[in-house]
Amino acid sequence: MTGSNDSENSEKFWIDFSKQPDGLIPAIVQDADTNEVLMMAYMNEEALKKTMTTRKAHYWSRSRRKLWLKGEESGNFQTVRDIRIDCDEDTILLIVEQKGCACHLGYKSCFFRNIDGDIVEERLLDPDTIYSDHKSQE
Amino acid sequence: MTGSNDSENSEKFWIDFSKQPDGLIPAIVQDADTNEVLMMAYMNEEALKKTMTTRKAHYWSRSRRKLWLKGEESGNFQTVRDIRIDCDEDTILLIVEQKGCACHLGYKSCFFRNIDGDIVEERLLDPDTIYSDHKSQE
Repeated sequence: MTGSNDSENSEKFWIDFSKQPDGLIPAIVQDADTNEVLMMAYMNEEALKKTMTTRKAHYWSRSRRKLWLKGEESGNFQTVRDIRIDCDEDTILLIVEQKGCACHLGYKSCFFRNIDGDIVEERLLDPDTIYSDHKSQE
Repeated sequence: MTGSNDSENSEKFWIDFSKQPDGLIPAIVQDADTNEVLMMAYMNEEALKKTMTTRKAHYWSRSRRKLWLKGEESGNFQTVRDIRIDCDEDTILLIVEQKGCACHLGYKSCFFRNIDGDIVEERLLDPDTIYSDHKSQE
């Protein structure tokens, strides 16, 4: 990642957000140490720029319709080590150092269930405390 | 995965495709041996059912608007070892044994470039031969 990508010219990102119907690109998030797939979220151009300049993962929340710094409420920030783009230039892969857990339900990864609905990962945190504990530290 | 999921009732998949605006779910594809993220594609309910019953990854091609058996033209099939769903039940993670390479450009993974456009993976196959070699074997 270079600082030169923090410009107004989206071509420098190798991704043309304007080509996407909703201006959003899916971002797959992978743990830098374990290679575990942690979650998927969506980025607009502003989220990608913020991610590149701050090295903290930012996304576009489709439900809240706002820019979202991952960890802003839970403290579970993602420090970005690398950003990859796919051959079609319409998907991003973020390789991150995950603080705490990625999933709001207290699992390291959001993919903690198999297709039969069986839970196949250990829960790391009590979801009731993820947000309250962080707030009490602020 | 159990055979009981091959029914007409989509609730058994823990994913309600009808909730998606276009009836499609993004599927992240991860290599079972290396944990490398190989690609992302989209599934409709038929693609998921076919994937579960055949254990070969099937997707919905948005550009060709048809069901697509990965490897049907290249021979680079994906044998599915596990299927995960995320906490929001709107993304799938396929864990696969990848034959050959996942990317149509001859790289193991479609994420062979970083955000600056630098190629960071080795090319495994000449893309000109991926499809012709397979066809000549048929």
